[in-house]
Parts: sequence; C-alpha cells; structure tokens
Amino acid sequence: MAKPSVEQVKAYLIGLQQSICERLEQLDGKAKFKVDTWERAEGGGGASRVLTAGKVFEQAGVNFSHVSGAAMPASATAHRPELAGRSFEAMGVSLVIHPNNPYIPTTHANVRFFIAEKEGADPVWWFGGGFDLTPYYPFEEDVVQWHQTAKNICDPFGEDVYPKYKKWCDEYFFLPHRNETRGVGGLFFDDLNEPGFEQSFAFMQAVGNGFIEAYSPIVERNKDLDYQDEQRQFQLYRRGRYVEFNLVYDRGTLFGLQTGGRTESILMSMPPLVRWEYCFNPEEGSDEDELYQRYLKPQDWLNLNG
Amino acid sequence: MAKPSVEQVKAYLIGLQQSICERLEQLDGKAKFKVDTWERAEGGGGASRVLTAGKVFEQAGVNFSHVSGAAMPASATAHRPELAGRSFEAMGVSLVIHPNNPYIPTTHANVRFFIAEKEGADPVWWFGGGFDLTPYYPFEEDVVQWHQTAKNICDPFGEDVYPKYKKWCDEYFFLPHRNETRGVGGLFFDDLNEPGFEQSFAFMQAVGNGFIEAYSPIVERNKDLDYQDEQRQFQLYRRGRYVEFNLVYDRGTLFGLQTGGRTESILMSMPPLVRWEYCFNPEEGSDEDELYQRYLKPQDWLNLNG
Repeated sequence: MAKPSVEQVKAYLIGLQQSICERLEQLDGKAKFKVDTWERAEGGGGASRVLTAGKVFEQAGVNFSHVSGAAMPASATAHRPELAGRSFEAMGVSLVIHPNNPYIPTTHANVRFFIAEKEGADPVWWFGGGFDLTPYYPFEEDVVQWHQTAKNICDPFGEDVYPKYKKWCDEYFFLPHRNETRGVGGLFFDDLNEPGFEQSFAFMQAVGNGFIEAYSPIVERNKDLDYQDEQRQFQLYRRGRYVEFNLVYDRGTLFGLQTGGRTESILMSMPPLVRWEYCFNPEEGSDEDELYQRYLKPQDWLNLNG
Repeated sequence: MAKPSVEQVKAYLIGLQQSICERLEQLDGKAKFKVDTWERAEGGGGASRVLTAGKVFEQAGVNFSHVSGAAMPASATAHRPELAGRSFEAMGVSLVIHPNNPYIPTTHANVRFFIAEKEGADPVWWFGGGFDLTPYYPFEEDVVQWHQTAKNICDPFGEDVYPKYKKWCDEYFFLPHRNETRGVGGLFFDDLNEPGFEQSFAFMQAVGNGFIEAYSPIVERNKDLDYQDEQRQFQLYRRGRYVEFNLVYDRGTLFGLQTGGRTESILMSMPPLVRWEYCFNPEEGSDEDELYQRYLKPQDWLNLNG
C-alpha cells in the first residue's frame, strides 16, 4: 500500500485552487481574483482568493488552507480518542460561488485531507470532500447534468460510490428547522481511507477536478437569461437559507469559528446581500413554489421516471 | 413566601406585548403590527406581532409565547437532572427592532418565566430577561442614557444588581470569532429565584416596562437625522454581525430551532436586509472605526471619567 504523501496532496490542492480560479475568471469575463495569504500562530496558514462584483459572479471565494499543530485539539479527539497527543496536518480547498443572475445556482465545493502522526506508529489519515448545488430557479436539465457528472466521476471507483455519496450529501445539506434540503445535492464524502492512499487520493482528485466541469455548463447556459427584480428578490430571500445552514449546522464553519480559524476566510461563504422576510410563502403554482415542491426534496435525479 | 402564579405572569406578559406594540406604532407613525397566533402540537402556542416597512422601523417583531409539556425535554434536563420527569411551562415576550435610519440602534429585549412541577413537590421556577442595544453610529449621550435607565430600573432591587446584570450582558452578547461585543450591552439576567416569587416577578416587570422607556428617547432623538447610502451600507454590513451572533451563539435561537419551535417566530430577529463584505475594515479615524475602537468593548458607561 502506498505511503501517504502530504507534499503530493498539498501540491495538488494548490494547483486545483489555481485552475478553478482561472476557469471562474474566464466564465466571468470581467473581474479578477484577489489573493490574501495568511498565517496561523499555531502552525500553517493559507491563501484566500476572492472575486467580487463580477459580470457573472457577485462573489466567488476559493480558499486554500494548510494548518498543522503539535497536538490534536481536544474538540477533535473527543470522538477519536486514539488520535489524542498526535501531531496533525489538515489541508483543503473550499469554495462558495454566489452568481448575480438568479437563474444560475449558488454552489459549494470542498476537498480535504487530514493526517495525524506519532513517532513509531502508522499515520492515521483520511480524505473528504464533495460539491453541491443550490438553485433558485432550477432547470431540470441542469440538475440532471450536475448529477450525471457526479456519477461519471464516481463510477470508475465502484458502482456503489455515487449512490452512497449522493445520499450522504442529501442528508448533510438539510435544514431541519425548514424541513428543506439546502439545494439539489451532489456528492459528500468523509473519512475516506479504506481503499488505500493512492485510490483515495485519486478519488479526491476526481471530485476536485470534476467540480468545474459540472458547474461551467450551467453557468454558460444561464448567464445571459433575463431576470426582473422579482427574481432578484427571491434569490436574496433564499440566500437566507444558505446563511442559516452555514451558521447553524455546517460543521466546517462552526469548527473553524470555534477553534480560532481565520474568520474572514471561513465567512467568505456568506452571500454578499441577503434578505429575510417574515412568513414568506410562494404563491401556489409559481416558479418559486416549484423550487419548494419539486426540488428541495431528495430524489433520484438520474432516474426521474424510474 | 408567595406562591408562584403562572396566570399572573401570563397576564402581565400579554399586556406587555400589547403596550410595547402600541408605543412602537406611535413612534413609527405609519405602519401597524400584524398578528399571527399559532399553536404548538406538544402544548401551548403564541402570538407573533410583526411591523414591516414602517417610516421609522424597517422591521419590528414582538413575540409572546407560552409553551407547556407533560415532561421536560431531555436537552433541558441534562444540566438540571432534578427536573427530569416534571411537567413544565415556559412563557415570555421577546422582541427585536431593526430601524431604517442607521443612526437609530437595533435593539433586543426579552422577559421570560419558567416553571417545572411535580405532584407532591415544590415547583421549581425562575425568571430571566434583559435588553441590549446595538448601535451602528453611536452617540455617547444615547449609550449613557440607556445604561442610566437600566441602572434606575435595577437600583430599587439592590446596588449590586445593575453591575451584575450589566456584566452578564456584556459577556453574553459577545462574538468570540470577531472579538467584539454585539453592541453596547444593557442588562441580562437568568435563573432569578432567590429573592422569592414576588420580588423576582417585580424585577422582571421593571425590566419589561423599562425597556421602552430606555429605547424611545433614542428613537425620538435620531429618527430624523439625515443619512447617505454610505451609512446605510455600513448598517447593512453590521447587521451581519447580528445574524452571526443569533445563529451561532444565541441559546434561545438555537434551542428554539433544535426543539421544533416555530421557525418564523424565532427568526423574526433576522434583519430584513443584510450585507457581508470580505475583509471590510473601516478607515482609521472614521465614524465607522469609532464604533469598533470605542464602543464594541465592555466599559463602565456611567463612569466614563472614573
């Protein structure tokens, strides 16, 4: 079994951040990413890239971070006591994109690697990641293509991979207090170690590389669609759900905020403009209603007539 | 010692909601509150009153709720095992006001009563509550008057009361990930039982009645001040901190969302419009900077030269 190579994963992640930012700049056609590099007192640091006020993207944030420490934080070893006292490294690329046009979905993607080491013992490591889509005015074609791309990424790794990580995504991105999914899902995986380093790393790369292939065609198809203030207002309202999910439930966000992560990088996921409206309910049969009735419920998008 | 009277507390709270809404309508001069009453399957219900798109208030939400149950929820007895198996009633009035004008602070107030009973045992009960102020462009006069009113409310109940509950407020409304207080504080108390029912109830009423006396003059003084888009944008940006606090830290909000409370009533605290901006920092020496440098740090507002 291949030995885990931290440097190899890190080099991949840095390249991935670069290539995703380049593709997003091409898609936007106007705005460019700005970079902030930062260091963490306890070890490691990162580079946050943000594009704002673009032609297509109201805001896109793509983070790379690589943090390390001499001892695992207590909060992280509560569930894995075997890791107590180990040194650790955690690295990943995480992104959230908020487009201007309400016909383009918001999206999030993340790939990450974790390793805990101790003199004289085998390292403990795993990969995690995924991507998910949050439309405001969904088109079935987009949702099906998104899931088809996800499935194509997974299939070489086994036929149970897509259904398993698709389900995990539906379960993770769910708002119990709204009884809604955050969007139409995608892939979510964590603790991936069992296939060995090479295969696990290969899968994480397939997900990382596949994200922009899944998202780009949706942006291209919808970026020039006309919309009115009504659609914009609904988009701003629905962005509130994104905020609710990320601040109330998202484990990465909460862990980051509670353990002294770089707040501005963690909260790059917050939409640039958001609206709340007491007791808003879409009119029955409207486009807005269709989002709730049809799309914000887990379902088999690749077998709609199944 | 007087016996706790649930009906007496409930009648007070219903009257308080009514009188605060009347005063807010007078202050607004244009918009009126709308009322939604709701019931809870497990027992009890409430009345949510919301005023939107007013002349002075962009949104004001004033909730009354009275929930009851045959057995305490497990989450509530983890820290007080002596309450397991008891029936309970919880009631309160809670409000959040988001004004249009950035020179008027946002404010929050809450008074509440909790009682757990069991055949053949003394009831266990306590009061809680408080109010706090979140200015965008603070005036020292307003902040001092706010705290002076808070102190005047507390002083008849003992000279240690104001300092104790003022400190609790500063500690509670604090955002560790921003290293900022939510605003300039006020009063926060909980578990109030020791002085006996009559005195504890009297204190809760003093806080409930005192809130509008503390807030009204600030509204009156500032509601006609001119402001530009720059001030509005800063207000929208700072409202993001309000969202961050309420969704990440506020115990009432999280408890409500996690235990199947009425989501729309709980999230009436969310501002109608909010902005996030990556790495925003006010210009040194600006009015915006003064908020951070001078006001968002706990201090003795009644002894500024002390």
